[in-house]
Amino acid sequence: MPTLRIALAQVNSTVGDIHGNAEAVRRWSREAAGAGAHLVAFPEMMLTGYPIEDLVFRNSFVAASRQALDDLAISLVGDGLGELAVVVGYVDADGPAHTSSDAVSGKGRRDASALLYGGQVVATYFKHHLPNYGVFDEDRYFEPGSSLTVVRLGGVDVALTVCEDIWQAGGPFTAARRAGAGLVVNINASPYELNKDDVRLPLVQRRAAEAGATVAYVNAVGGQDELVFDGDSMIVSRDGELLARAGQFTEGLLVHDLDLPAADAAPNAEGSTDAAKPLVEQSIPDEMAIHRVSVLSSFAALNTAKDGGIAERISDEAEIWAALTLGLRDYVDKNRFRSVILGLSGGIDSAVVAAIAVDALGPERVFAVSMPSGYSSEHSKDDAAEMAKRTGLDYRTEAIQPMVDGFLANMSLSGLAVENLQARVRGVILMALSNQEGHLVLTTGNKSELAVGYSTLYGDSVGGFNPLKDVPKTMVWKLARWRNTQANAPIPENSITKAPSAELRPDQKDSDSLPDYDVLDPIIKGYVDQDLGRAALVEAGNDPALVDRVLRMIDLAEYKRRQSAPGTKISGKAFGRDRRLPITNSFREGAKPL
Amino acid sequence: MPTLRIALAQVNSTVGDIHGNAEAVRRWSREAAGAGAHLVAFPEMMLTGYPIEDLVFRNSFVAASRQALDDLAISLVGDGLGELAVVVGYVDADGPAHTSSDAVSGKGRRDASALLYGGQVVATYFKHHLPNYGVFDEDRYFEPGSSLTVVRLGGVDVALTVCEDIWQAGGPFTAARRAGAGLVVNINASPYELNKDDVRLPLVQRRAAEAGATVAYVNAVGGQDELVFDGDSMIVSRDGELLARAGQFTEGLLVHDLDLPAADAAPNAEGSTDAAKPLVEQSIPDEMAIHRVSVLSSFAALNTAKDGGIAERISDEAEIWAALTLGLRDYVDKNRFRSVILGLSGGIDSAVVAAIAVDALGPERVFAVSMPSGYSSEHSKDDAAEMAKRTGLDYRTEAIQPMVDGFLANMSLSGLAVENLQARVRGVILMALSNQEGHLVLTTGNKSELAVGYSTLYGDSVGGFNPLKDVPKTMVWKLARWRNTQANAPIPENSITKAPSAELRPDQKDSDSLPDYDVLDPIIKGYVDQDLGRAALVEAGNDPALVDRVLRMIDLAEYKRRQSAPGTKISGKAFGRDRRLPITNSFREGAKPL
Repeated sequence: MPTLRIALAQVNSTVGDIHGNAEAVRRWSREAAGAGAHLVAFPEMMLTGYPIEDLVFRNSFVAASRQALDDLAISLVGDGLGELAVVVGYVDADGPAHTSSDAVSGKGRRDASALLYGGQVVATYFKHHLPNYGVFDEDRYFEPGSSLTVVRLGGVDVALTVCEDIWQAGGPFTAARRAGAGLVVNINASPYELNKDDVRLPLVQRRAAEAGATVAYVNAVGGQDELVFDGDSMIVSRDGELLARAGQFTEGLLVHDLDLPAADAAPNAEGSTDAAKPLVEQSIPDEMAIHRVSVLSSFAALNTAKDGGIAERISDEAEIWAALTLGLRDYVDKNRFRSVILGLSGGIDSAVVAAIAVDALGPERVFAVSMPSGYSSEHSKDDAAEMAKRTGLDYRTEAIQPMVDGFLANMSLSGLAVENLQARVRGVILMALSNQEGHLVLTTGNKSELAVGYSTLYGDSVGGFNPLKDVPKTMVWKLARWRNTQANAPIPENSITKAPSAELRPDQKDSDSLPDYDVLDPIIKGYVDQDLGRAALVEAGNDPALVDRVLRMIDLAEYKRRQSAPGTKISGKAFGRDRRLPITNSFREGAKPL
Repeated sequence: MPTLRIALAQVNSTVGDIHGNAEAVRRWSREAAGAGAHLVAFPEMMLTGYPIEDLVFRNSFVAASRQALDDLAISLVGDGLGELAVVVGYVDADGPAHTSSDAVSGKGRRDASALLYGGQVVATYFKHHLPNYGVFDEDRYFEPGSSLTVVRLGGVDVALTVCEDIWQAGGPFTAARRAGAGLVVNINASPYELNKDDVRLPLVQRRAAEAGATVAYVNAVGGQDELVFDGDSMIVSRDGELLARAGQFTEGLLVHDLDLPAADAAPNAEGSTDAAKPLVEQSIPDEMAIHRVSVLSSFAALNTAKDGGIAERISDEAEIWAALTLGLRDYVDKNRFRSVILGLSGGIDSAVVAAIAVDALGPERVFAVSMPSGYSSEHSKDDAAEMAKRTGLDYRTEAIQPMVDGFLANMSLSGLAVENLQARVRGVILMALSNQEGHLVLTTGNKSELAVGYSTLYGDSVGGFNPLKDVPKTMVWKLARWRNTQANAPIPENSITKAPSAELRPDQKDSDSLPDYDVLDPIIKGYVDQDLGRAALVEAGNDPALVDRVLRMIDLAEYKRRQSAPGTKISGKAFGRDRRLPITNSFREGAKPL
């Protein structure tokens, strides 16, 4: 039984930075070779980043991806890594040679995996199952592949698959069984969702049984706009045993020795194969064809054994906190912002955003501004100052009243217009400081507020990134409490315990305008995340009058939300791309017409 | 040869307003019956509006659409229209009975057409070809139908098809030939693009030849968020003759008498059919099955002949102007805004927006604010006042300097921060007036400005709708000149001829920061609308240094544009949903890294 030492490179790539991503492949490949690995596998679309969306329509981009793959194979030989098998994701396209920057034509764009060896692109595989739901629009961007690629490597048949291939039964994993593969390498860019790691292990186990083969699942790690990839790479044996598992939200190599069946002895192999050259073995209607390639007769011997170990799972709150900090850090760093700025009110939302920012970027890159109005309480200002003291972030005060008075003296405003004016003057101050000093403005509105429109357009909604965009208010409190149990408790107790208030008129409380968050958040979850209608929400035990009131607020707020900043996605369905409701929409779930 | 009098109902429906849309079907059906029609056809998704996007995931919405269809059939009988065949688009779903608001389950959502007759839903057809490009994401929302429905009506075999079915060869139109259909009814929600009407006629002719049948093409008219449906309904005979054609951008019935082959004599019919009841005739692998239904043995006799006539095509400028006014009117009215407000600077962009608004809504619903700064020229103020005088819109002046001075006195700002501050104070004033008086704020930035980021975030980019979002600057001038050749020339000549300026610092001109719009606009079109890369743009004759400069500006502006208002789409590819580029994106076409 050959022993293959595999390295799963759970690493962070950047959309569009093809050169930088290729350099990362070389760096991590050196490390894998140093650990004695025979094969290293990188995530889906490693070379281009994921998701590339409409970039795929630019031929010059696709050509650059293909060129980078060829160049990478040669560079690896130059690095002395010609004997290391490197599996890496990239974007490919059907069409002519890919040297000219605009030579690629046609619609056949592919989400591809390649195996590099000895300076050559030895084998390629095109993703078969394309997801087209939630955050995915791959039917729009790619054509599905129709054949499985199996590489005989060191006497083991290794099948190449990509991401969604593992989420659907049939297709590549069934074909892998038919092909007698001993190992299936599945490369992923699988975004984080709360509790998704609980789903992944049984899924990989199911597919290992389907393929009758060991499955090596490698996932990306890192933030990309609204998505965060959480890693959680793992290896599962054909009988379902979890052999090794990487940590969540951390970069690294998972190196593990696998005893795999020799190709000729593979239990499900069909007939004999010619290992000397690539061949198409069969093409059965309604089944995937199987392409075979052979590159290496036997693996180099290993002196000592390597066990990747099984990393412990972290708590839900730790998971979400890690997703939010990683999402913010990568948004800031990949977009090359030096620093962030936010309004710090003393309330829970801005306190949690400040704590996330400090954890993500360090206090020296975080700038906070207290902007008290005539209605801000003393303790609000104290709580903001206390937060600054605890974390070491840069803190200053800018009074808004003189500017607010300037508008009021020149215009006839009353009621809501005056409340919103205060929030908008704060927005102008933050944007002026952003222009003057170069900070990215962070928005601090939570998901509950956004859902019901309890915010000011171009006021507190101003900003380039909103860490809490997909975090309901009840979860904001939970996160604050959890974070304070960890090192350097950053959040003043008073910010957590006091009644929430926008402080835009005397003695204003959220509860003047909104139901309790304990009853509000489940309705938001049902209507927004789960597409439940009024009847289903009432059936689920929510008060009918309350359901009517909340759905009406959400329907009205839908259009305001269009203008809000992107933020890290953590739920099954977030505001943003995967929830693109029409703005003009007279269909209302509320009992009364608007 | 039976004579069928058909009425194509080129009408406007509203997304989500199922009740109102059903009422419109009844109203127009009465009119069709009054004109003696045997059959009236309404657009795709008439009952629900189009596009419904994620509303389709709410079971209660789908159930409401199905219920409305059944109710409509009965209402039509109550209206004395039981003998009129009514073809109408709606959303359907596979699954149990559709009376309970949440009874529909499963993934089988359908973009459907139904034929109503005698109080019954006599036949249904599910769209076969689903578009999943540009503004369309139908693979995400619907499952394709796999059988063609043919209704024997008055002795004529009438095939039902939906929209994209006519844009692709094969499928329903081939099946219609096989089924011996005499008439194919194709119902559409086909969005306007410049010159799209030039493409439609040859397309319908091609498909009529493919089916060997007369084709009746009915399209929606009206605005929905960023889309405008332009009508242009038409009837083409099997030998390609254009028999009748409706106007562009206008509601109405196109009523026309068609001499059609009797079903038994249909030239391509396969074998005999049982006209008494629905039957599945055949199900050939890789071909569509054919469902047949029969409902009416012969048409009522007609006394006089009806010819729908062929409406003349309008000029490109008239077409765009009609699209922009209809898009704005429907956005305002369908979202139930009473009025709009905009900043009127005396420049060309705000002048054209004001003219569009007045044409769309009438001057009594348009409010304009001149907000001069210290750098605004006298003639700017005069031009704004002159525009108000010519159109009769509501006009006032709000000085921004006192508020700008308030910020400058309390903060240390310089350079770009001060320029942006002026634009943001204007944004706060417009939003305050919006809150106080209830107007929708219109944004006035054109596509060229937006593309290169020549605007202030939360400043002049403030607003709920931007009529010029997809209109390049060179086209803004063309439209202004064209509009002034029409009745009541609204735009002061000086606004058209003067050099464009943001007037945010002394003697500022657009040409200080931007290339001439004559050379800028073609590069924007190539890079943004056509996905051309740098090499292709240079090859097309653009100056390489200029290409580098402009692509760099566009890449940098990509993220700012995310926060801008929706606007009417008129080009092949607009900023917005059909161009969803990653924000974090290090792939740059410019020669230098950013």
